[in-house]
Amino acid sequence: MTSPPASPPARPGSYDTISFLSDYGTVDEFVGVVKSVIRQLAPTVAVIDITHDVPAHDVRAGGLTLARAAQYLAPGIVVAVVDPGVGTDRRAVAIEVGDGVSVLLGPDNGLLAPAVAMVGGATRAFELADPQYHLPAPGPTFDGRDVFAPAAAHLCNGVPIHELGPEIDTAGLRPGILPLSRMDGDVLETEVLWVDRFGNAQLNLDPADLEPFGPRVGVRAGTIERSAGRARTYADLPQGDLGLIVDSYGLVALVLDRRSAADELDLAAGSAVGLRMLTDDGGGSTSPVALTRKHPAAAGAGQLPATGRAPATGRP
Amino acid sequence: MTSPPASPPARPGSYDTISFLSDYGTVDEFVGVVKSVIRQLAPTVAVIDITHDVPAHDVRAGGLTLARAAQYLAPGIVVAVVDPGVGTDRRAVAIEVGDGVSVLLGPDNGLLAPAVAMVGGATRAFELADPQYHLPAPGPTFDGRDVFAPAAAHLCNGVPIHELGPEIDTAGLRPGILPLSRMDGDVLETEVLWVDRFGNAQLNLDPADLEPFGPRVGVRAGTIERSAGRARTYADLPQGDLGLIVDSYGLVALVLDRRSAADELDLAAGSAVGLRMLTDDGGGSTSPVALTRKHPAAAGAGQLPATGRAPATGRP
Amino acid sequence: MTSPPASPPARPGSYDTISFLSDYGTVDEFVGVVKSVIRQLAPTVAVIDITHDVPAHDVRAGGLTLARAAQYLAPGIVVAVVDPGVGTDRRAVAIEVGDGVSVLLGPDNGLLAPAVAMVGGATRAFELADPQYHLPAPGPTFDGRDVFAPAAAHLCNGVPIHELGPEIDTAGLRPGILPLSRMDGDVLETEVLWVDRFGNAQLNLDPADLEPFGPRVGVRAGTIERSAGRARTYADLPQGDLGLIVDSYGLVALVLDRRSAADELDLAAGSAVGLRMLTDDGGGSTSPVALTRKHPAAAGAGQLPATGRAPATGRP
Repeated sequence: MTSPPASPPARPGSYDTISFLSDYGTVDEFVGVVKSVIRQLAPTVAVIDITHDVPAHDVRAGGLTLARAAQYLAPGIVVAVVDPGVGTDRRAVAIEVGDGVSVLLGPDNGLLAPAVAMVGGATRAFELADPQYHLPAPGPTFDGRDVFAPAAAHLCNGVPIHELGPEIDTAGLRPGILPLSRMDGDVLETEVLWVDRFGNAQLNLDPADLEPFGPRVGVRAGTIERSAGRARTYADLPQGDLGLIVDSYGLVALVLDRRSAADELDLAAGSAVGLRMLTDDGGGSTSPVALTRKHPAAAGAGQLPATGRAPATGRP
Repeated sequence: MTSPPASPPARPGSYDTISFLSDYGTVDEFVGVVKSVIRQLAPTVAVIDITHDVPAHDVRAGGLTLARAAQYLAPGIVVAVVDPGVGTDRRAVAIEVGDGVSVLLGPDNGLLAPAVAMVGGATRAFELADPQYHLPAPGPTFDGRDVFAPAAAHLCNGVPIHELGPEIDTAGLRPGILPLSRMDGDVLETEVLWVDRFGNAQLNLDPADLEPFGPRVGVRAGTIERSAGRARTYADLPQGDLGLIVDSYGLVALVLDRRSAADELDLAAGSAVGLRMLTDDGGGSTSPVALTRKHPAAAGAGQLPATGRAPATGRP
Repeated sequence: MTSPPASPPARPGSYDTISFLSDYGTVDEFVGVVKSVIRQLAPTVAVIDITHDVPAHDVRAGGLTLARAAQYLAPGIVVAVVDPGVGTDRRAVAIEVGDGVSVLLGPDNGLLAPAVAMVGGATRAFELADPQYHLPAPGPTFDGRDVFAPAAAHLCNGVPIHELGPEIDTAGLRPGILPLSRMDGDVLETEVLWVDRFGNAQLNLDPADLEPFGPRVGVRAGTIERSAGRARTYADLPQGDLGLIVDSYGLVALVLDRRSAADELDLAAGSAVGLRMLTDDGGGSTSPVALTRKHPAAAGAGQLPATGRAPATGRP
């Protein structure tokens, strides 16, 4: 699922890897059952777990996780299931990218959209509507087992994607909605996309957007006001000093060295973070920094051109 | 491990999949060590994790999890280890099902029994007593590594099951004990078999047992009294409305749409839940519903015929 | 990675297994991304997870976990990443053991040292400095993906280890630091190396060191004083009775039957535990046992010869 090859598209039936993301957790047997279904239908295929601990029903978190992983996934099939609408009339879809290099399977609820955008957009899409490619199910609540796993296996076995159900308009696929960062007065209003295991808080911010800022940046999170130093890596930061680094996905993240910046600033995915240019660098990270507007009269929605960028079209 | 093939049983040595369930967790290295032992003895075999987060020492939970998964597992070897009696004289056993289509390995403590019943019962059983098929061990407390993993690998390599140790009477295997639902007055007394990651509470109840009930059912859990609507899937339920659906394994579950029914009703595996027929449908789910008996004089154990069914012989 | 073969060392390019340990957790996509990189570079190689739930940044815990697993791992490549210094000048290294039977990849921060010692020591070591074997990275904070995964895959593909970067002196590798048990007066002062999922507390103590002790041993953990019975396995212990057993790795562990000894004694990795010989066996496990020194005048550092042993050279 990295860059599509320049010349011939993947031959149908050549898929040998299924990348698998869900909110199933690993306490119940759901993931094992999905893999067992695949194993019986397509025994030689490798299944690679991306994660199964997306918060339950959190389509946004799942979509962002998949998008972060997308450029590193092996070409082949992606099964992604965060599906609070399972059993309703939401569609189960197969989205082809790269003219067939990879196919993403999942509910049409926006989960797949950021990853599809990351790898160049959908080339075709189909609804997984043909029941001959489903497992018979006692109840309609486990489509990972009954719909997506069999579809993934059949694609690996060479079943053409158009046999799984009717083609649908890629323009009609449910989009993912990603927040834009924007200037409000002299504050760059950003949002936390992701807090990782180490407490690093990834912002919806391209490093280029920080270019006008100096070596220290004012940071406001809720009622907490701090300053952060721009750094290359965690260990460049003095003990306890908040940092802004370019993370391993190329976005800006708020970090601490060997501690959780998210705990320090009480941040979670979706939290608002305001970044303000500092005119002097006198404010140490542990000293609160005033984030009152320099030009209050200029504030207000729409009064300043938004500089926000849509990360979905670039990086997650 | 789905339905045994009509014609020839699996040739010994043709096993190429090991399904693996335990209470080892994934924080320690136990699971990785078991897989490493298998990898060295039988390098081409695939190991599929069912789960390793069965609550520590919870043989009942492990047995139910294995039984839910059983009908979906690939034919081959199953290794299941929830083994508080490790190192005692409890037997380590190999239970053959389907005349050799699959073999389940684990302690003889009832853990394997519900899954064995699900797939048609044991055809033969052996005690894993021959030390030449064990790893030498510094201590007697890690039979997953020292007994079950080598046995699984040797079976995959074509060692006949009867070489692993003496045959034992399948009638002497420790049974799994599963609760029966039963009528007590006009209340159908059920028990929670499983609370899944999403907070759905599976009951020991076949959908057929709900047939006499109307579209709404009185629900009593501890001191909480509610009513639940019968529904096809989560999203059919009004916001906050408890539902009774047929779950993905064909049993009845108490659910909420996008929220945890178990949290709402303070349920865990083993909790008692009373279901009562409602004569009118006036009680909304958020209004408490009186569950006092209509005919108190008729109440009492044994006065009404029990309608309970043993789920182990059908579905878990 | 068990015992090196007597005769010819492994042919370069014959590696087909990558054992993988990290502190990445499994909630984020880190582990899946590392495996996806490996899958694309070396498609036929098997990756076996040891664990990814080493506590974040806990090099000691990761090193001990790897050492416990080491003697059971399949020969091949080991990738271990607990790396608080990622992005600094700490070296990324490849440590060859058994003249090429296995190669361990990770940061040179002591993480690999106990495992390397367990399998006979390093035969050669190289710094992973050649960028042609790295992935291009937007930021310097994910060496598992950008440095270690590609190096592992290239080694499996037959790239000779010396092509990955300059050879370094094995004597200059960062050592792991393991605590020694020691006699202080008549108390054997030990340290908890590891608390497993079941609450068993492994001590830095070889069973031979317990030989002078009787069937019951005084135990002091913080302000808690108890006695423990020496036993062969959990189930030999009376209900609620603390035990000292030889665990599955051959070290002494403090245990309870079906309960957590660590919870009972408020122990975690690194906790100090004093063991004292008891002259009579009258003290039951639930009766506190006085652990005052018999010869207080003789106490003090250095007054008695230390009997501590370095577990890294034997077992972890």
